[in-house]
Amino acid sequence: MKKLKVVAFDADDTLWINEPLFQQTERRFCDMLEDFLPHHTISQELLKTEIQNLKHYGYGTKSFMLSMIETAISISGKAIGVELIEKIIALGKEQLNAPVEILTGIPEVLDQLHGKYKLIMATKGDLLEQERKLKRSGLEHYFHHVEIVSEKNEAEYERIIKHLDIAPENFLMIGNSLKSDVVPVLNIGGYGFHIPYHTTWEYEKIDIKIENPKFRQLENIAEVLKYIV
Amino acid sequence: MKKLKVVAFDADDTLWINEPLFQQTERRFCDMLEDFLPHHTISQELLKTEIQNLKHYGYGTKSFMLSMIETAISISGKAIGVELIEKIIALGKEQLNAPVEILTGIPEVLDQLHGKYKLIMATKGDLLEQERKLKRSGLEHYFHHVEIVSEKNEAEYERIIKHLDIAPENFLMIGNSLKSDVVPVLNIGGYGFHIPYHTTWEYEKIDIKIENPKFRQLENIAEVLKYIV
Repeated sequence: MKKLKVVAFDADDTLWINEPLFQQTERRFCDMLEDFLPHHTISQELLKTEIQNLKHYGYGTKSFMLSMIETAISISGKAIGVELIEKIIALGKEQLNAPVEILTGIPEVLDQLHGKYKLIMATKGDLLEQERKLKRSGLEHYFHHVEIVSEKNEAEYERIIKHLDIAPENFLMIGNSLKSDVVPVLNIGGYGFHIPYHTTWEYEKIDIKIENPKFRQLENIAEVLKYIV
Repeated sequence: MKKLKVVAFDADDTLWINEPLFQQTERRFCDMLEDFLPHHTISQELLKTEIQNLKHYGYGTKSFMLSMIETAISISGKAIGVELIEKIIALGKEQLNAPVEILTGIPEVLDQLHGKYKLIMATKGDLLEQERKLKRSGLEHYFHHVEIVSEKNEAEYERIIKHLDIAPENFLMIGNSLKSDVVPVLNIGGYGFHIPYHTTWEYEKIDIKIENPKFRQLENIAEVLKYIV
């Protein structure tokens, strides 16, 4: 990895806690509707609605709010009142304004790498939401710039690398999603480090065995320093 | 303007029609609720809700949808059923999938400028939504890259200029909003051309007289070529 110049970090569940916030909101949403269906069936219906809506809405909390509203109406057979819709909107706003909880070891690793490599943050999701989380995190000063994309695929990583004016072998992406952070980067010739988070959104789960010399499976963020300091 | 290197275009109501789509959706929304209040009062309440929600949601159609839902519930005193919420969601999805209608003269002007200057598109709004509109517009190939920001203010324009590795006097922004496209760019030393669109969102309206040698008030996009070809 002698040619490494740029280290890119995923944000949600790599730098800070995210999926548990969605899961907490979802549990409270299921509680509201438990007269109609058991929790796990509501969750399944919600996931279906979210995936169907991805092409319209993309990722992020606003999309999640709209999908919760749609799911609540459909699974109740329109038997709910608008008070419940108000509660869903309140849940969503609460999630949007939740404090940002940085994951263990992140500031120490960023401190070590900062100045040695160009650090960027590369995330998908809602623009305003991710910018706001970065500001609240206090980590902003570590990053040369931030790339917020609507989908993390090969084409977008190629654009990011072109924009950085580097070759793929100068680029390392670190993140908790094999599907979004690792596989597409390896596919275009970059390095990918996977740090699993204890919980992953259903939609991000893939079953894959990676054999690629540019891939590393890590246990935690501190292990990054074994390979690139 | 001898030092001009980069010409940035706003997107909504500069490259393509946008505000009329929001107005059409809003009229249909007001129609649904006319048993409760007259149209203009509903519009006023909706605008209030939208502005209050900007800090949570930012710009774009999803934010507009959530604000319409909230407004419908509050102005009806919770007297509406969830069928109406479903109709609002359907209106929003229809707007998200509306065809992109390019404004008169745009391709001709982009053709003339392309190759002479680096052209970029600089817009606020929802990431996925703006990317999708650009793809559908068929104008993507004219632009070196696209900047989608959560707010168009001095700090964001400074970041864009720094990212382009140019000085403010190398930068021209063209758009229909004095508030978002012209004033902040002039304030940091760039050029700003204003091309009013026949209708403007209330929130973007400002009453200002600009006296700045780097400002031009144009009638239509073709006039750009009088100054910079």
